Amino acid sequence: MNTHDLIRDLREPAKTKIVLLVADGLGGLPLHSGGMTELETASTPNLDACARDGVTGLSIPVLPGITPGSGPGHLGLFGYDPLEYRIGRGILEALGINFAVGAKDVAIRGNFCTLGADGTITDRRAGRPTNEKNKAAVEKLRTITIPGVELFVEPVKEHRFVLVIRGDGLGDLVNDTDPQAVGVAPLKAAGGDAASQRTAEVVNRFVAEATKVLAPEAPINGATLRGFATYPKIATFADIYGLKAAAIAVYPMYKGLARLVGMDILEPGPTLHGQIETLANVWNDYDFFFLHYKYTDSTGEDGNFPAKVQMIEKLDAIVPDILALKPDVFIVTGDHSTPSKMKSHSWHPVPTLLLSDVCRPDEVVHFNERSCLRGGLGQFYAKHLMLLAMANAGRLGKYGA
Amino acid sequence: MNTHDLIRDLREPAKTKIVLLVADGLGGLPLHSGGMTELETASTPNLDACARDGVTGLSIPVLPGITPGSGPGHLGLFGYDPLEYRIGRGILEALGINFAVGAKDVAIRGNFCTLGADGTITDRRAGRPTNEKNKAAVEKLRTITIPGVELFVEPVKEHRFVLVIRGDGLGDLVNDTDPQAVGVAPLKAAGGDAASQRTAEVVNRFVAEATKVLAPEAPINGATLRGFATYPKIATFADIYGLKAAAIAVYPMYKGLARLVGMDILEPGPTLHGQIETLANVWNDYDFFFLHYKYTDSTGEDGNFPAKVQMIEKLDAIVPDILALKPDVFIVTGDHSTPSKMKSHSWHPVPTLLLSDVCRPDEVVHFNERSCLRGGLGQFYAKHLMLLAMANAGRLGKYGA
Repeated sequence: MNTHDLIRDLREPAKTKIVLLVADGLGGLPLHSGGMTELETASTPNLDACARDGVTGLSIPVLPGITPGSGPGHLGLFGYDPLEYRIGRGILEALGINFAVGAKDVAIRGNFCTLGADGTITDRRAGRPTNEKNKAAVEKLRTITIPGVELFVEPVKEHRFVLVIRGDGLGDLVNDTDPQAVGVAPLKAAGGDAASQRTAEVVNRFVAEATKVLAPEAPINGATLRGFATYPKIATFADIYGLKAAAIAVYPMYKGLARLVGMDILEPGPTLHGQIETLANVWNDYDFFFLHYKYTDSTGEDGNFPAKVQMIEKLDAIVPDILALKPDVFIVTGDHSTPSKMKSHSWHPVPTLLLSDVCRPDEVVHFNERSCLRGGLGQFYAKHLMLLAMANAGRLGKYGA
Repeated sequence: MNTHDLIRDLREPAKTKIVLLVADGLGGLPLHSGGMTELETASTPNLDACARDGVTGLSIPVLPGITPGSGPGHLGLFGYDPLEYRIGRGILEALGINFAVGAKDVAIRGNFCTLGADGTITDRRAGRPTNEKNKAAVEKLRTITIPGVELFVEPVKEHRFVLVIRGDGLGDLVNDTDPQAVGVAPLKAAGGDAASQRTAEVVNRFVAEATKVLAPEAPINGATLRGFATYPKIATFADIYGLKAAAIAVYPMYKGLARLVGMDILEPGPTLHGQIETLANVWNDYDFFFLHYKYTDSTGEDGNFPAKVQMIEKLDAIVPDILALKPDVFIVTGDHSTPSKMKSHSWHPVPTLLLSDVCRPDEVVHFNERSCLRGGLGQFYAKHLMLLAMANAGRLGKYGA
């Protein structure tokens, strides 16, 4: 029996509230042998108190050794097996610019390029235009219409844009038209099945029109497309868990991932305090709150160990404001690790704590990588976290008699 | 390759003996933050010695967060994936009254009800009759015969009974006839496939006859049926493990679950000492012994923390009597946790110990929830316990060359 069906069978109504605080890229590494991680270095009295009163462990985002992107990282935390549910690159790109992709959409990553007189590519990135020039070129592409489908073109930055084709029966088994080389012409799109052939026809027509509307102004006089992706078939939070869920995130990508699973997307102020204010304001309106905190990841990506420590301490400082709302289940975790030492996402399991009235406390009194190793949740797959959240919230009945 | 086939391939004959002592609902919770669990509170010198000499861990009955009933809880311990092998409600009800259901049976839960003059239900529980009145009404139902099938009617208690239909080609995709409401007539049974239509016809006839034989005496003048379940297709212990297995349990449900996997059901005296006496008497006749101890669960369900502590201590006291028989593998675990604090089954992993001459001891010297977290078995799925039992008993050969 699949886990989502199991949850649908077992779930019970309740008035309990669950807060999932995702500190992006939370886990880290010591810079040197014998050293401490970012979390071990940071002073986190509030998270430590939660670790003492709650249960801790380490979340494996996908599989041991597998480093997830933000998509699979969050899908796992939301209870969707990230190996089963895959979000195509085009859809992720659209989510990342806060474009509301939907069930009839094929989303595609676009690059402006420079074409020579013979139609071959001379610059795959059209000289990396400014964002202003990108926007102007996007405006030109927006004049293109193709009967039977709706087209949306959105600027990303520099040479990048997003194309969304909306229509019935469109497939995404379409090859990239970007040949990943200069001196050759962009490839024709071809579809791997009937629905994708339909998409390919639209695409080829779009590219031909693009060359016309862009033409006068090299270096932006062509476009290549890649990462064709239809909207994933994915059941919502309400459908699976019976939870009315709200996302309180600042960055578009995370709002988009939350929208994908049917959460309401709130628009908090851009600071952590703004997010907590929003949380307090809507506390009575939802069962589940996804709070996303970006800066543990971005400082890690920058390789800035002290800045990541500082961002962790900043997060720790607002924990009492969340607890003051008296959530029935409070979870702190990350979608993956981002060790400053590596300046990138990593596969290392992510420190996790769960606080509820019926969690079974362990001996852990500090919230960090090494302490959580001794935690009562053990090392568990991220995709199982929502089962624990639901159970601790009194929202899952007994399986079998 | 499925695990049962793997075991069939690898198993080797041996003269070793395995004792699986299941303390029902063993795991618990502290009543208050900073407190101790029932197991941590109890004085358990004998189990602690086993933990010291053996290897410990925590068993996850089904999945993190999933609370099992007794059926899935025991199937897991017996090595059957509880998400793959499901036992229908009717079969469990029949097992619970020690009715020997078999491969040709559809078992059904019945309720006596009160019908008004217009045939609608006025009381879904027929005024909760005494067990004596229940038995008298069951006797009347036993006079019903339907050609082509055998019928068995057994009293449970108050308004509840079990109906078993025995015959060839009967299905269980049949709707409940209990409308779960008063003021409406019982529903007609209908089958979801040809075999189930056959069952539905028998059922509709049975209900019509029941109304006739019960009629004179309201409040017991009707019957509703629900939880239709055929006997699960399940390979036996002998077939999978090559083990001659005996169940030494007091309560019918657990005898029934053991019978389901092909164990011989022994009839011990009603006390723990009676069970151990039976164990000693049949020691030479079997390879595997399933000892079931109910009172760690029932005291937990009652929310009686000190009583559960006492029941744990009582169990601890008989451990030397088991060890005196020199089992090659001695396992103590539970089918799930039943924290007194929750007065119910729960999802929390279950303390487990395994003692054998070839187990790899860990540093754990106390048998309880927090200590077992540091145990050598880690947190493992219950369905894998029998693999460890077989290996430690020298009954599993090498996989591959």
